[in-house]
Amino acid sequence: MSNLISKIDDIFHSKTLAVYGVSRKGGLGNILLQGFIDQEFPNLYIINPTISEPNIKIMGVPVFPDLKSIGEPIDLVICSTHPKYVKDIVIECGQYGVKAVIIFSAGFGEKSEEGKKTEKKLLEIAQKYQMRLIGPNCMGFYCPETGLSFFPALPTESGPLGFISQSGSIANIMAFSSMLKGIHFSKSISYGNGIDLGFNDFLEYLGDDSNTNLIACYLEGVKDGRRFIELVKKIKKPIIIWKVGVTPGGSKAAHSHTGSLCGNDKLWNNIFNQYKVIRVYNLEEMVSMIQAFINPMPVRDRRVAIISGPGGPAVSSADACEMNNLKLAELTKESKMRLKEYFPEFGSSMSNPIDISLQATFDPILEKKTYEIVGKDPNVDMILIYLTMLTPRYKDLIDLQKDISKPIAIVSALDVNVSADCFSKNIIRSFIHLRAKKVPGIIKKMNEHGISIHPNENLAAKVLNHIYRYYNQTYSP
Amino acid sequence: MSNLISKIDDIFHSKTLAVYGVSRKGGLGNILLQGFIDQEFPNLYIINPTISEPNIKIMGVPVFPDLKSIGEPIDLVICSTHPKYVKDIVIECGQYGVKAVIIFSAGFGEKSEEGKKTEKKLLEIAQKYQMRLIGPNCMGFYCPETGLSFFPALPTESGPLGFISQSGSIANIMAFSSMLKGIHFSKSISYGNGIDLGFNDFLEYLGDDSNTNLIACYLEGVKDGRRFIELVKKIKKPIIIWKVGVTPGGSKAAHSHTGSLCGNDKLWNNIFNQYKVIRVYNLEEMVSMIQAFINPMPVRDRRVAIISGPGGPAVSSADACEMNNLKLAELTKESKMRLKEYFPEFGSSMSNPIDISLQATFDPILEKKTYEIVGKDPNVDMILIYLTMLTPRYKDLIDLQKDISKPIAIVSALDVNVSADCFSKNIIRSFIHLRAKKVPGIIKKMNEHGISIHPNENLAAKVLNHIYRYYNQTYSP
Repeated sequence: MSNLISKIDDIFHSKTLAVYGVSRKGGLGNILLQGFIDQEFPNLYIINPTISEPNIKIMGVPVFPDLKSIGEPIDLVICSTHPKYVKDIVIECGQYGVKAVIIFSAGFGEKSEEGKKTEKKLLEIAQKYQMRLIGPNCMGFYCPETGLSFFPALPTESGPLGFISQSGSIANIMAFSSMLKGIHFSKSISYGNGIDLGFNDFLEYLGDDSNTNLIACYLEGVKDGRRFIELVKKIKKPIIIWKVGVTPGGSKAAHSHTGSLCGNDKLWNNIFNQYKVIRVYNLEEMVSMIQAFINPMPVRDRRVAIISGPGGPAVSSADACEMNNLKLAELTKESKMRLKEYFPEFGSSMSNPIDISLQATFDPILEKKTYEIVGKDPNVDMILIYLTMLTPRYKDLIDLQKDISKPIAIVSALDVNVSADCFSKNIIRSFIHLRAKKVPGIIKKMNEHGISIHPNENLAAKVLNHIYRYYNQTYSP
Repeated sequence: MSNLISKIDDIFHSKTLAVYGVSRKGGLGNILLQGFIDQEFPNLYIINPTISEPNIKIMGVPVFPDLKSIGEPIDLVICSTHPKYVKDIVIECGQYGVKAVIIFSAGFGEKSEEGKKTEKKLLEIAQKYQMRLIGPNCMGFYCPETGLSFFPALPTESGPLGFISQSGSIANIMAFSSMLKGIHFSKSISYGNGIDLGFNDFLEYLGDDSNTNLIACYLEGVKDGRRFIELVKKIKKPIIIWKVGVTPGGSKAAHSHTGSLCGNDKLWNNIFNQYKVIRVYNLEEMVSMIQAFINPMPVRDRRVAIISGPGGPAVSSADACEMNNLKLAELTKESKMRLKEYFPEFGSSMSNPIDISLQATFDPILEKKTYEIVGKDPNVDMILIYLTMLTPRYKDLIDLQKDISKPIAIVSALDVNVSADCFSKNIIRSFIHLRAKKVPGIIKKMNEHGISIHPNENLAAKVLNHIYRYYNQTYSP
């Protein structure tokens, strides 16, 4: 373990934590503190110099006027005060031997030249005391394993995803959106202006972290392009990046957001293609891509079989596959013969895209057998399934996967599923559906078996293409 | 009203209906029948020649061995039998004076050359009796106003959307997906192989229908391109088309689905661009675009203001706008001065994209005032708002719209909202959210005021660009 990696790992394993910026009347600091309380972080303290009475507690957490009054070593400090207090707090932390400070406060380099100068000073102070800084203008760390958090009510379960975000809000939205899809985190990191520890440091750390199987990032720009390239070249885990600043307007916005320089987008694309970084363009794409790369099945060719109850979506899915550089598989004669035994005489189609017709709704054997025959066909490398909603038949796919180990992407109007409980009179009567509360757990189980769920066929096809590219070194601009 | 239009209108206003293909043991015919029962269609009958006993009812509907035993005129017949019986049924209908037959049964022109010949015969029979045919291989009509239906449990409310679909399943999925977004139908039409009444006929009809404000279509191909062009040129309502068969694979699939010839996609694009037809590529895009065109606000320029609580999505939204041919608005000095009164000192940005920072979560005045100042700025033509979820503050926007009448597109991780009821412990505590059951009604109200809700910023920007193009004759390939 390098020095840097072991230092970051130490911060993630902090045992004592003090928060600046919590007050009796409430505010952002109190909300940050609630996150740690929810994760049952072991030793929490509040520092508030305006409260000098002894034995005061806010939200059940003891309050001290300064660090030294606590009387025990403090590993990590969260600073959520007005920016004008930050410098003195950082000095106090350095003198007290704190390992790292997460500066939530904003109003520095992203704001003005004056702010940039202050940032430089903060860094000098930290370096003097061999203390590390995260931020400013960030949410910090979320790590369910060790109880670190950046917002209340985040899940307490750990998972395989490591997430790095320049934007705190996106780290936060991601945590909630992912929860609904059963995706959980090893670590999530929001580093904002990144004046000390930055994107490359965290990328290196997660690349090495044994609890992280895949890495996803929201990125505005990096400071050291050469090191970034070396890292993505070296790391043998899927890396998914939502890189913004594609256009002049976006670049300008990024600069006023975290002071980032986005760089030439074409150049970024070339790097991503060369080093198999998977690029996405919004949160919805990000969540789809993460699902597909939690346990992607190795694949050697890109012949897709499309299975669809409804005929219309089968046609559109065929378009989506060809537009995403995939080929439509030609089933073997044997498979077609076997399908014939189960297929309805009319309204169905056995040539790819395979349309199992409306009858699938009433004939579970038809659906199950189609998955089996098509899934085992040697001419089929990957499968795209278009369903109206998830049904309990998802188990057939998981069972089949043990035999075939092929990437499977499902398109599903999932919101119907999740909503079914609420609009029950209309929907429960017409469809076999899963209870909403069970949906995240089921998606999680499917993801673990290389099966992912998507809101539309274009995204499902994009995901399959990226799995193929990931295993076949065929990335090109 | 032309002869054709009044004939189709007559079919939509059928008062008596007989269904072939309903049996004691159940099946697809029974499911279709349930749809009409749910819509409280006035006079329903079942025709089943294998049941000759008098006074038999299935699902509460009286059964007769043939039409003439009913003893009253029948306006419309639904035929859901094995295809081999269809010809004789059509003859019987013609002789009995039925106005139209919806042929649900498949296994005709989409299947074989033999099937094409049968279709020709069916058409000859119908023409001999001046009777109209819908299908075969279709779901038929859904019209809440008159009680027509093609699936159980469809909403009984009417709305402004006319929908035409070559695919029955898509007509069906659309009905349910739309319901969750508060979108309702004047008429929805699934015409399948369209051997008699086809796409152009229904397009002409909906173009003239006073209950239909906008038209959306799923299309594989049309038989008479010249007439299609004349129609889209003539109709002064927004027309949204999901045209499939973009690629060779998709075209082939469409041909085996409904026997359609998709034609050259580039040519289609040219026609769509020239005649302001709005093209979408999947159901998710379709639902977004429909929302935006339920009551689109007229707009003369394409300068967008982006308002976002979180900074990251603001950057990505700026990218999305520029990628979709929109410009970032430059706020007036006056607006910036006024914003300054309400804006937090740090973590926010007043230059477009406007980042109201995390503080918006706790400061409803900030959100409301930002909408107001930005909305009234003369340099702003349209507004894109990125929210984590819908909150009760949507009312501020509706109020504002009465003053400004500008297109507003909201990006929202709505599934979080709809799911909030189910995952309440985690989510209700952290966010102000709306109860799931209320979401469709609220979206409906927003759509009626020119405010639409989208799953990602790229779709929101695409929608705004199409509104601009719709009002400014600037469609080009």
